[in-house]
Amino acid sequence: MPLTINTDRLWNDLMEIAKIGGTQKGGCNRQALTDLDIEGRALFARWCAVYEFEINYDSIGNMFARMKGQDDTMSPLVIGSHLDTQPTGGKYDGVLGVLAGLEVMRTIADNGWTPMRPIEVASWMNEEGARFAPAMMGSGVYSGMLDLNDIRAVADIEGISVGDELDRHGYSGFPHAMGKAMHEYLELHIEQGPVLEQEGKTIGVVTGAQGIRWYDLRIRGQEVHAGPFPMAMRRDPMAALPNLIQGVLDIGRMDEKARATMGQIHAYPGSRNVVPGHVDLTIDLRHPDENTLNEMHDRLNKLLADLAEEYKALEVDIRLIWHSPVVAFDDELIAAVRKGVETHGYSSLNIVSGAGHDALMVARKVPTTMVFIPCRDGLSHNEAEYTEPHQVEAGANVLLSAVLDRLDLT
Amino acid sequence: MPLTINTDRLWNDLMEIAKIGGTQKGGCNRQALTDLDIEGRALFARWCAVYEFEINYDSIGNMFARMKGQDDTMSPLVIGSHLDTQPTGGKYDGVLGVLAGLEVMRTIADNGWTPMRPIEVASWMNEEGARFAPAMMGSGVYSGMLDLNDIRAVADIEGISVGDELDRHGYSGFPHAMGKAMHEYLELHIEQGPVLEQEGKTIGVVTGAQGIRWYDLRIRGQEVHAGPFPMAMRRDPMAALPNLIQGVLDIGRMDEKARATMGQIHAYPGSRNVVPGHVDLTIDLRHPDENTLNEMHDRLNKLLADLAEEYKALEVDIRLIWHSPVVAFDDELIAAVRKGVETHGYSSLNIVSGAGHDALMVARKVPTTMVFIPCRDGLSHNEAEYTEPHQVEAGANVLLSAVLDRLDLT
Repeated sequence: MPLTINTDRLWNDLMEIAKIGGTQKGGCNRQALTDLDIEGRALFARWCAVYEFEINYDSIGNMFARMKGQDDTMSPLVIGSHLDTQPTGGKYDGVLGVLAGLEVMRTIADNGWTPMRPIEVASWMNEEGARFAPAMMGSGVYSGMLDLNDIRAVADIEGISVGDELDRHGYSGFPHAMGKAMHEYLELHIEQGPVLEQEGKTIGVVTGAQGIRWYDLRIRGQEVHAGPFPMAMRRDPMAALPNLIQGVLDIGRMDEKARATMGQIHAYPGSRNVVPGHVDLTIDLRHPDENTLNEMHDRLNKLLADLAEEYKALEVDIRLIWHSPVVAFDDELIAAVRKGVETHGYSSLNIVSGAGHDALMVARKVPTTMVFIPCRDGLSHNEAEYTEPHQVEAGANVLLSAVLDRLDLT
Repeated sequence: MPLTINTDRLWNDLMEIAKIGGTQKGGCNRQALTDLDIEGRALFARWCAVYEFEINYDSIGNMFARMKGQDDTMSPLVIGSHLDTQPTGGKYDGVLGVLAGLEVMRTIADNGWTPMRPIEVASWMNEEGARFAPAMMGSGVYSGMLDLNDIRAVADIEGISVGDELDRHGYSGFPHAMGKAMHEYLELHIEQGPVLEQEGKTIGVVTGAQGIRWYDLRIRGQEVHAGPFPMAMRRDPMAALPNLIQGVLDIGRMDEKARATMGQIHAYPGSRNVVPGHVDLTIDLRHPDENTLNEMHDRLNKLLADLAEEYKALEVDIRLIWHSPVVAFDDELIAAVRKGVETHGYSSLNIVSGAGHDALMVARKVPTTMVFIPCRDGLSHNEAEYTEPHQVEAGANVLLSAVLDRLDLT
């Protein structure tokens, strides 16, 4: 019989911490660096104190709970995720990864083992990016993808900056995030998509993450009155939208791994009796293969060139505003996850992460992988987010087995 | 030689009043019931006082300058428009119609004539609808299309209501707008479109106004994450837009008098990495023939039924939120305008108003017509709005001739 986590303890912890910022619809609102976020972290720290896991912070507000190793000078194996939530978030996104990490350390301690190297559970600051943009701040600063001082200057909608809050909560005096050595990094997370549920699989073995390209697009025409101006004389930017939108969706369907999303669209000045002067929209292209993502990029540019040719009265401007290259996770860690799946006899599927996660940032510096479990209807960032106790159990067991394997604890 | 207006005097008045609320780009910002609007009205009143034209108001803040008739108990012939402007408006929209009315009365007085019935110049309150929506408030209340108490309750973006401002400026105690009898109504206005300029015509003989139908449309899909969710499993409302937008534009091209405008479009929640849960857009359909406008309405409903059939995973809701029937102006007044055009030897074109005007409201109660003059590039609601002195002259002369004809002053 393989070692297993204590499902009731983990599930009870998930339900208990969800009361901090709990919403009427059963979700959670515990946004980064708010008093509720700090209250959630304090509860987590009390659970850690029972096992004498030491708590440390860094200057961007990342929180680490440490189980000592036999050789405590070795760099830690780190398990992590985040305790902050969306304003109308659920009980599992992020929180599961942190509490499952704690449960792994408790299970090892309960079994009387001391690992060779230390284990730490990281709770990264502001993964969600809801109160302060961008997302994945703590892990981004840790990995060197984001600059500490730039991030300190970011303000929320009320003008309160990240730096103000780091000062207020006493995090600013801790060591700089980037100095911390880590041996390996593992993260358990709900899938936030429907694939595992649809395929009837218990565990997602995450092999990497999609590459992402974000574009801002503007189609310029001429702002004129909806009544007097004849149709034939108009330069209506809406006229280019049918071919544009169809073309972008076709790019997203070039193979079954591709994704194309237009999440924002807005006409200016936005008056119902004025032909828009311009229409702005955003395009999000994703693919797990970098070459194919490049091909999607080329097809988008070709589409826009064709549009410019067809609608000479309009101007089409495009700007690539972000490119996140494809991430490939560490082969040895992936193998350890697969071994954990086999150990427990769970069904599984190789999967590529479509959403952003702290692990994608950490992977720039440290060998990393992730484990996914299904969530109901693929819903996340939603108060209705749900994953069943037996699914939580399976994910945490695989995480435990992978950690034991990497630490040669058997 | 027909009687003509004093072009320099009228042009100088236009330039003088434009200083009140004048903008750096040469436009005007004199929004309804602001202190600047009142200052503009006070200047107008001082010009009227020179000729002893009496000023009166009604309880919605409409302003009337009166030239006495030989039989002063007769209902007045009214010339009017508005002195309020858009926030980045021009010098001519509305203001021209009021000052040309004054110029017509001055010219008659200078010529030593007293008309049989009184003449009045109306400056309607809040034609623009910029600070307080809807537009055409003063003429709308006058004509019974809007309710005085409803309109008093309308607040601007700072929470100040129309009623507050009517009280503050002392208008509330005047008689109710609806009680006022008028014999006939004439309004001179810039075209706010490009047709007269394109056709090289001096005067637009306005035969009526387009009928208008306003719709709010919502396409519902499902809000999911842009990364994990496979394209084939999405219910992306953007997918219906190509056929929808093309279909609406095609309805707008069913004949050369038709218009179709989508001025607002917005995706919710409006995050670049979230497939929209729904997309809202507005549709504005116009036609000068009521039967054809009905046909456009039917074609729109057919289009939406086809879309619902094609995209079964989406829901399409449409709401008709406003229907302004086709307005036909008064035949005798149109004939008087045509006679004025011939008297002065101007070129002209029959035209249907595409924009909203106080005259469209007044026409519900009183025999009405309008005169249009060209504006450069068809631009209006824009600080670059411009019409040349000789064009202003032509418009005011036609207005004068039509008034003289209707009053048998020759």
